[in-house]
Amino acid sequence: MNALINRSIILASRPQGEPLLENFQLVETPFPRLCDNEVLLQTIWLSLDPYMRGHMDEGESYSPRVKLGEPMKADTVSRIIQSNHPDFSIGDFIEGYTFWQEYTVSSGDGLRKIDPNLAPLSTALGVLGMPGMTAYTGLLNIGQPKPGETLVVAAASGPVGSLVGQIGKRMGCKVVGIAGGAEKCRYIHDELGFDAAIDHHDPALPQLLTRACPNGIDIYFENVGGHVWKAVFPLLNDFARVPVCGLIAHYSDVGLPPGPDHLPELMDAILVKRLTLRGFIVSDFNTQAEEFRREVASWLHKGEIIYKEDIVEGLERAPERFIGLLKGNNFGKTLIRVSTI
Amino acid sequence: MNALINRSIILASRPQGEPLLENFQLVETPFPRLCDNEVLLQTIWLSLDPYMRGHMDEGESYSPRVKLGEPMKADTVSRIIQSNHPDFSIGDFIEGYTFWQEYTVSSGDGLRKIDPNLAPLSTALGVLGMPGMTAYTGLLNIGQPKPGETLVVAAASGPVGSLVGQIGKRMGCKVVGIAGGAEKCRYIHDELGFDAAIDHHDPALPQLLTRACPNGIDIYFENVGGHVWKAVFPLLNDFARVPVCGLIAHYSDVGLPPGPDHLPELMDAILVKRLTLRGFIVSDFNTQAEEFRREVASWLHKGEIIYKEDIVEGLERAPERFIGLLKGNNFGKTLIRVSTI
Repeated sequence: MNALINRSIILASRPQGEPLLENFQLVETPFPRLCDNEVLLQTIWLSLDPYMRGHMDEGESYSPRVKLGEPMKADTVSRIIQSNHPDFSIGDFIEGYTFWQEYTVSSGDGLRKIDPNLAPLSTALGVLGMPGMTAYTGLLNIGQPKPGETLVVAAASGPVGSLVGQIGKRMGCKVVGIAGGAEKCRYIHDELGFDAAIDHHDPALPQLLTRACPNGIDIYFENVGGHVWKAVFPLLNDFARVPVCGLIAHYSDVGLPPGPDHLPELMDAILVKRLTLRGFIVSDFNTQAEEFRREVASWLHKGEIIYKEDIVEGLERAPERFIGLLKGNNFGKTLIRVSTI
Repeated sequence: MNALINRSIILASRPQGEPLLENFQLVETPFPRLCDNEVLLQTIWLSLDPYMRGHMDEGESYSPRVKLGEPMKADTVSRIIQSNHPDFSIGDFIEGYTFWQEYTVSSGDGLRKIDPNLAPLSTALGVLGMPGMTAYTGLLNIGQPKPGETLVVAAASGPVGSLVGQIGKRMGCKVVGIAGGAEKCRYIHDELGFDAAIDHHDPALPQLLTRACPNGIDIYFENVGGHVWKAVFPLLNDFARVPVCGLIAHYSDVGLPPGPDHLPELMDAILVKRLTLRGFIVSDFNTQAEEFRREVASWLHKGEIIYKEDIVEGLERAPERFIGLLKGNNFGKTLIRVSTI
């Protein structure tokens, strides 16, 4: 195995604003020797997620930055192809936080065995993985949906938004999805069963949203920011809840936008309308992971929820897909198939 | 009683920005005749509170606006001097939402009898009234203080802030108070027992606050906004809670301040630090009113908490005191003694 060549995508330079292809580089490296209590993982599925944009910057964030010249990090599904670790066997399927690369040596820390008979392996990165759990925990813990309430979700055809909306429907909410383009809007309305779908490219977004939410908005699942937030903000009802799990519109911001300063306006609305804004990341609710997987897997098996994947073949295409993801060019959960089983 | 002359302070004009004396007018009116199931209240104590600034504006708010030419509204302590109502007797002491005036006819709705033996009557407007309950419910429900955490409270010598800090100390928090001027700072440190006191007039506020909070800030009880918020914001820890019950620095704002726009910066911090910002008004927690009064009254009787009142004699001085209150010129709970018992 020592002669094996590994391929990784490293952070070649830090982006100023939107990432470019030149910020990434595909490199080949030999393997280190596998030591005691280590396993060798072959990546099958690589998950691309908007939060990874933060890894590319310098400075503080909730997840560690990637150093220049080191591989980009990602949640992956892998197969164990070599094991010096008593807890893992060759052939085990694993979900874990590794890298944009074909093979990874791991101490086993943080790896989770997945049952390939439960659901397709790729779902461990989507509807049964981090995005699904983000939707489930954020909506239930912070959104606290009640029957008859109006729930608005942005990026509604994506892996988080699509599950947020479907859970909202299960709980008796009126669900309004915002997505980019007619095809995504058709999907969330016709296939996911949302009550309304609005294209955020439409310059009449504020008016369309007002019309779709005649009783105002009780829950806004915030994962984009930008002009969608601006349209949502005036419609928030008293006691509205805003789980904040992403701000994709701002991930490549450089500095603060020009004025006027809307901060006092937000604080005033928080006070006057008694809003709750609460940020979270999925690991804040790790104690609910088993409950989440059990419940959502049962909905999946009964065909009560559906999901969509946006699959691209080959590690080398990860940078271009990631750049596209930040622009909303994906349609469903973005996955790179790094190898076949 | 019909020949009695009543004196009221009415809203004569709406302020543009900070209120001026000319926005108020003292008027004399005869009494209406008392009908069946009505009572006549003689105001003893009139409470002045910053939120009343909102009553003077047009447009939507959480409390109804005052119409031009009508008396300003206030929480008051009164005595019943005439009663055609089976539930109320002459001599009863009452806390209720009435007006800036000497006598008020009431249907009895919303009036609460107070026991003059429990505590001084004026406390029904302060430490055992709306400000006290704002402190108690906001801190416990939203702030959720835990021993060892750092709690920062602004307007710390005021009726809300002083109780927030004292409850925080009881619960084992490190409490840092921000107040205007050396005398107030001395009071909150030496008499209330806060761990540190910082004068918000000091241009070094951000540095002083950083030094006073070496472990960051876990709870910020927000009741002022403005430059205090700007100093607090960078120090908020992961999972910090921000109960928002007032924004006195902005009550007289006209339009939005100039840029840059700090809104995306706040949203980013909410996400990255998983902050909770939640607005509330005291009535949101009305079901906890009895618990609040029982608990705080027992602390008062045991001498475990203290309070301070800023008393002015005579209804006619209410406008000038209210204007001063918005500038932070009060020291303790602002009360107008409208009549003596």
